[in-house]
Amino acid sequence: MKNPDFKNPVVKASIDTLRLLSADMVERANSGHPGTPMEAAPLAYLLFQRHLRHNPANPAWPGRDRFILSCGHASALLYSLLHLSGYDLSLDDLKNFRQLDSRTPGHPEFGHTPGVETTTGPLGQGFAVGVGMAMGARHLAERIDARLFDARVYTLCSDGDLMEGVASEAASLAGHLRLGNLIALYLDNRITIEGETDLAFSEEVATRFLAYGWQVLRVEGENLAEIDAAIEAAKNDPRPSLLIARTHIGFGAPTKQDTAEAHGAPLGTDELAQTKRAFGRQPDEHFVIPARVCQHMGQAVRRGLALERQWRRRFDRLNQSLHSPLTAWLQSREGGLPDGWGEELPTFEPADGPMATRKASGIVLNALAARLPLLLGGSADLAPSNNTELKGEAAFGPGHSGRNIHFGVREHAMGAILNGLAHTDGLIPFGGTFLIFSEYMRPPMRLAAMMGLAPVYVFTHDSIGLGEDGPTHQPVEQLAALRAVPNLRVIRPGDANETAVAWHEAIAHRSGPTALILSRQNLPILDRSTLASAEGLRHGGYVLAREEGDLDILLLASGSEVPLALQARNILQQQGKGTRVVSLPCWELFEAQDETYRRQVLPPSCQRRLAVEAASPFGWERYVGLQGAVIGLNGFGASAPADQLFERFGFTAAQIAARALAL
Amino acid sequence: MKNPDFKNPVVKASIDTLRLLSADMVERANSGHPGTPMEAAPLAYLLFQRHLRHNPANPAWPGRDRFILSCGHASALLYSLLHLSGYDLSLDDLKNFRQLDSRTPGHPEFGHTPGVETTTGPLGQGFAVGVGMAMGARHLAERIDARLFDARVYTLCSDGDLMEGVASEAASLAGHLRLGNLIALYLDNRITIEGETDLAFSEEVATRFLAYGWQVLRVEGENLAEIDAAIEAAKNDPRPSLLIARTHIGFGAPTKQDTAEAHGAPLGTDELAQTKRAFGRQPDEHFVIPARVCQHMGQAVRRGLALERQWRRRFDRLNQSLHSPLTAWLQSREGGLPDGWGEELPTFEPADGPMATRKASGIVLNALAARLPLLLGGSADLAPSNNTELKGEAAFGPGHSGRNIHFGVREHAMGAILNGLAHTDGLIPFGGTFLIFSEYMRPPMRLAAMMGLAPVYVFTHDSIGLGEDGPTHQPVEQLAALRAVPNLRVIRPGDANETAVAWHEAIAHRSGPTALILSRQNLPILDRSTLASAEGLRHGGYVLAREEGDLDILLLASGSEVPLALQARNILQQQGKGTRVVSLPCWELFEAQDETYRRQVLPPSCQRRLAVEAASPFGWERYVGLQGAVIGLNGFGASAPADQLFERFGFTAAQIAARALAL
Repeated sequence: MKNPDFKNPVVKASIDTLRLLSADMVERANSGHPGTPMEAAPLAYLLFQRHLRHNPANPAWPGRDRFILSCGHASALLYSLLHLSGYDLSLDDLKNFRQLDSRTPGHPEFGHTPGVETTTGPLGQGFAVGVGMAMGARHLAERIDARLFDARVYTLCSDGDLMEGVASEAASLAGHLRLGNLIALYLDNRITIEGETDLAFSEEVATRFLAYGWQVLRVEGENLAEIDAAIEAAKNDPRPSLLIARTHIGFGAPTKQDTAEAHGAPLGTDELAQTKRAFGRQPDEHFVIPARVCQHMGQAVRRGLALERQWRRRFDRLNQSLHSPLTAWLQSREGGLPDGWGEELPTFEPADGPMATRKASGIVLNALAARLPLLLGGSADLAPSNNTELKGEAAFGPGHSGRNIHFGVREHAMGAILNGLAHTDGLIPFGGTFLIFSEYMRPPMRLAAMMGLAPVYVFTHDSIGLGEDGPTHQPVEQLAALRAVPNLRVIRPGDANETAVAWHEAIAHRSGPTALILSRQNLPILDRSTLASAEGLRHGGYVLAREEGDLDILLLASGSEVPLALQARNILQQQGKGTRVVSLPCWELFEAQDETYRRQVLPPSCQRRLAVEAASPFGWERYVGLQGAVIGLNGFGASAPADQLFERFGFTAAQIAARALAL
Repeated sequence: MKNPDFKNPVVKASIDTLRLLSADMVERANSGHPGTPMEAAPLAYLLFQRHLRHNPANPAWPGRDRFILSCGHASALLYSLLHLSGYDLSLDDLKNFRQLDSRTPGHPEFGHTPGVETTTGPLGQGFAVGVGMAMGARHLAERIDARLFDARVYTLCSDGDLMEGVASEAASLAGHLRLGNLIALYLDNRITIEGETDLAFSEEVATRFLAYGWQVLRVEGENLAEIDAAIEAAKNDPRPSLLIARTHIGFGAPTKQDTAEAHGAPLGTDELAQTKRAFGRQPDEHFVIPARVCQHMGQAVRRGLALERQWRRRFDRLNQSLHSPLTAWLQSREGGLPDGWGEELPTFEPADGPMATRKASGIVLNALAARLPLLLGGSADLAPSNNTELKGEAAFGPGHSGRNIHFGVREHAMGAILNGLAHTDGLIPFGGTFLIFSEYMRPPMRLAAMMGLAPVYVFTHDSIGLGEDGPTHQPVEQLAALRAVPNLRVIRPGDANETAVAWHEAIAHRSGPTALILSRQNLPILDRSTLASAEGLRHGGYVLAREEGDLDILLLASGSEVPLALQARNILQQQGKGTRVVSLPCWELFEAQDETYRRQVLPPSCQRRLAVEAASPFGWERYVGLQGAVIGLNGFGASAPADQLFERFGFTAAQIAARALAL
């Protein structure tokens, strides 16, 4: 690896092979993005061959550096790299680019292709996830062992990535935290889909990143020695580094280079043939890998094995010591959890209340933190309101990687950073904000759900119950919008004890994210000596209070409306109506129960069904059917004390009872 | 206004009155944010008394400058200002701060309080809306008259605003466009909710804004002469200006100044009393406005009348000319539209197809643009894919305010800028991106819906039908998440002719936003000689193909699944099943129809109902009930050619027919 000879013809041949393989893949798929792979091949080659510590034979090696293709549309480049570097990805896989059930989908998908560290495509996300990964590596390095875990994170990104606000937020935090293990390589190609970048993007990116506290380096995108030296400089600086590479989209394509045409469509037969000719290749031969390229780039396998072997020696030494710092990590990795983590969580008595579920959440979270040493997180500048502070723990700051993360007023970056932390084996991340601001962070939540990552979102101030802050802060449609996301569990507990069970479920569930929806206002702590146990939450929904006599009316509720439904039941029972109250805090869990259970909770024979939730009624028809009704909010809220709003919008026991009788 | 004497005691008294009125409001409401009003009072005073061209007697005067309180939580300051400046907002209104049905809600609400230019509270939004307003003013100035419409936009913002990604995106575009009429005043108080800003925010804001191409000025927040000179310098620079004011949160509160405690809760009786004492006021007197302050600040009314009178003279002169440039504006303002705007829009014959609805949209949009001279918009760098380009029109660039806006890869800022443009009387803005990236711009869409603004969103690539780009780009839950937003119309037309009617509805509807949901892939143009007219879309849903014989089965579909439903109907009718196909492109419009119509379309007698939509089934139970079924997507999509995905996920005529028969 020392004394590189960039004039060695195999180097150029390797880079050209990356370019042409990518172009061939797009051409064969008749769909995709050839331009970025062609411009970024030199950078990618240098990274994978000379800088990235990775082991193609074991893509999950915990000591590896991370590579993120933030401009996920350049997936053909990544797949070509992985194939040539000896990952388990065949030439046939490359030929099946973008085909049904192939291992080479249009954008890189985590868990789908070996060597893909995170799913990218929506711009800016990969960049911000990289910040989270760099934080994760630093946290493990500091808490366990610096030499085992101080991975570097390399992110390849485009103009589009850096225009997105999520990248700005994440870059600002990365600079603040002095994440020296983060290196972003920016393809400054001056072309976007609509044309030259100066149609819309004339800012000085270098100056912006200097303002964030980054090191900024400039290179010419085809000058290997320059790029190599810059990456070396980036590795040796305590700040995060931005390497600005002046590149040429579609490099080598005779008429399409440096034009938007090279971006998102195949080059076309003629242009591709001419490109190959320009690179000294046969214009009519496709998917060609010269033997010497194969041999040269395949050396990554041998190097990777040696790196991991060396790492394992240290790992084994540490692991054999009596109080190994690795113990907690070994128990927590790959979705595992430390022994006894879920035992003796706090429970609450009616006399402890009334208590806001956000407050109960803070108590339970701190109890969990004592048992889960690799749980960490924070809030987007609302920790005192979200109750997300881990008491007695240090902050994650520039000099110390504590467990309390101050994300700043940056919800979107928080969501993406949580993904990066969740990618860090062993860590259990959480992040809080007001429920309304879940709207700022939906793109990374969706990616977490898609990837099966399991951060926990602590969303407080969950309805008009927040009161005076008014309609801009009062969630209405957010519950429906979150429930509609596949593989995202949304849990809205009805009291402190349901909150404790909800947290337990959130931690136990390691294959998808969970959103906890919590009240700002105090709620009674339900008397479980007369009502069903809060453990029923594990089924998503359960019969909280059974009817007396025959079942006439079904009341369904979640969160702060559960105690109201119980009061309404009293009124209705006094009028001789057998009324059942079903607490339904999590639709996803309820849908996962077998039909027998669901029919026991919601007997089909009872069609007088009324759902009560201080949110949009959207979606509740699933449970109340065409004959039932929903008391919800059909418009936005208002600014006033919470109790007056509940009255105004129909959320009182008397109004619920009256509506139920009218069914 | 010349030769200010900032030592005049009435100036200090006015500023102190703003501070104490605000603190009194919060104290009385027992809820709210006193700290920011107390720190920002000098800036606010200078703006309203010396720089802002406004007319308190006519807050809608089109020639006014705009003031945006981006840190909306400081609403008490704005209400105090409006009251003292002579707007129609009484002292009793101030005393009713944050109470039910008051005119002084917790955060400023557009349309609710005179003088409130836009609804703020979610951080970063106001800042970005200001960029849109500045663009709107420049557009009107250039197209109609520079002296009538070149308003300045002043935005007061906090650390939180500038940490949000949406502000970064908008600031970058504002610098690019050289919006010299935009002046942001940044309260650099070094405090956030979790504590000192340097917990999470240590970037050099000044350098960042210089990188964006802004002028940056620094002042001390209590130095009136310095602030005044800086605002003057900002007004006279061709770049947008950021005025960084070093301020002190809770200024004057003896123990809470410069602490997070001053941010979001009343000062408390003792602290407030001591504060008043420190300002030389009676500690036990509340809501006190010295007579000289009342007189001094009330002069804004006289000045405002004079300003508007002067403006009216020029306006009347221009208006009287034969071909007045004002004609189009006068027809378009206040929700009006020019004569004949909706006549003879394109229609399409089956032989014109197959055609993607995104393509039809581009054709209709261009026809509309020819009739609506104040329609303008663009795309977040996807114009060639969204078909949003207005042919033959110039770009909105640094030197020329054309009708084609290049937003860059900045969906979130686009959403907020569309709100700023929609606030500009007469303008009809639209913005496009892929449907999946609606997720990046939900906060401003929600504010548009709340404010009753009417931008049009052009969301293309609306399902797995986009094919190879795969699950990161394929919308699933986005339709449900948008349909759940109150007052947002979501229209997913089924062919080119429905697209034309959808655009007509979107433009005609001036009291809320509309999202058009369009296909990437080609769809047949339905033969309206045998099917019902596309005009049925105006009702949200309509019987597209009536059953032959008795009604057995109801098929409901939208968008690209409508032609599939028609094919399935053929299969079912061949088997003797009377099958009706209902096209349901817009739930919001359908819900607005009377019950008779809705029951005609969906007869309650028919419970064999199958909805077909290539999206999450979430919410469709509203129409199919507990006995019906939905063919939708319960998970994420996949990367493959679109036709293979439709087959895989059950969207073929044969599978639809089989499922319907099994009901």
